[in-house]
Amino acid sequence: MSNSDEARNIFRHEGQVDRENRERANRHKGLTLWFTGLSGSGKSTVSVALEERLHALGCATYRLDGDNVRTGLNRDLGFTPEDRIENIRRIGEVARLFRDAGIINLVAFISPYRQDRQMARALSDRGDFVEVFVDCALDVCESRDPKGLYKKARAGAIPNFTGISAPYEPPENPEVHLRTDTQSLDDCVEAVLGHLVEKGYIDQSLID
Amino acid sequence: MSNSDEARNIFRHEGQVDRENRERANRHKGLTLWFTGLSGSGKSTVSVALEERLHALGCATYRLDGDNVRTGLNRDLGFTPEDRIENIRRIGEVARLFRDAGIINLVAFISPYRQDRQMARALSDRGDFVEVFVDCALDVCESRDPKGLYKKARAGAIPNFTGISAPYEPPENPEVHLRTDTQSLDDCVEAVLGHLVEKGYIDQSLID
Repeated sequence: MSNSDEARNIFRHEGQVDRENRERANRHKGLTLWFTGLSGSGKSTVSVALEERLHALGCATYRLDGDNVRTGLNRDLGFTPEDRIENIRRIGEVARLFRDAGIINLVAFISPYRQDRQMARALSDRGDFVEVFVDCALDVCESRDPKGLYKKARAGAIPNFTGISAPYEPPENPEVHLRTDTQSLDDCVEAVLGHLVEKGYIDQSLID
Repeated sequence: MSNSDEARNIFRHEGQVDRENRERANRHKGLTLWFTGLSGSGKSTVSVALEERLHALGCATYRLDGDNVRTGLNRDLGFTPEDRIENIRRIGEVARLFRDAGIINLVAFISPYRQDRQMARALSDRGDFVEVFVDCALDVCESRDPKGLYKKARAGAIPNFTGISAPYEPPENPEVHLRTDTQSLDDCVEAVLGHLVEKGYIDQSLID
């Protein structure tokens, strides 16, 4: 028997509690905020601050980042081109599960390639994928260098480092475009939050 | 540079919102209810009914099953022994993320091998993994045969079918042991719920 034969033996089992039930209880949609940008651009900083804000409003939130994904689900993956794609694919699939669970999930990875981000977005079929471009001039990112990675990359100790020896493909039509080299952290947080309210992702009753 | 070298470049970034914050807001712990049992034993039925009950109490819940995992995150996996193990490993890792998100996640897969379930349990380090043995005599499961799988398996159309041509290793010390061939659905739901209350997973204020 082929795998596809066995796959046909998997039946849909409709649960009594569905996404709409969870979203109604949460008073917001399940959605993915996909942060992309150079190392040092502020993806983690903005997503952490935004999550704090959303949590304070009563939203159900979760952040997916290198800390909890690379060390667990994707621990079997290295940094070959194939593994980088599989890394993003799995993150995209997990983000989909969290959307289905009615959670606002904040995904913060460099995710430098348009095609990979498109793959993650393609798993969304109801406009619940919000790409947040955390834009920042390379020299500013490099001057921040919170983890000392640019220094290592310049010294040749990290090959294929995004922005130095590997490309970063900026989003062409991100839902939100932040400039962390000119905007304050508060402004960045409010810009994303404003987008979520404007688009009706978050019930007005949570904001008032 | 080896993968482990690059892995060292992944730094911990402590978020302002942590698991404890989410659990406090939810008034229950993040935990995994791992349902295991033969095909037709009632894993889906019990987990669906239990989720309905928990949702009505105000708990944040999510079910992981073949429908949303096999068709997404694990769509690249077949049914070889290696792929079956990787299937359970990834499910265990995703369950861990949902625990960290403060969600009561209900995981319903046959998961016939003790070693695989042990692997999933080993990802838990704070007693937030509750194994629910959905026990039911094979002849009762076979007489239910809601998907016609036993009939196919007896006809030889499905090789390595658990209970017929492949082993099922019952849990030795499950936290909850249900007998769906003698207990009613309501009794099963209350048995699991009672365990969660007794062990303090759910705040009493949600029950009263």
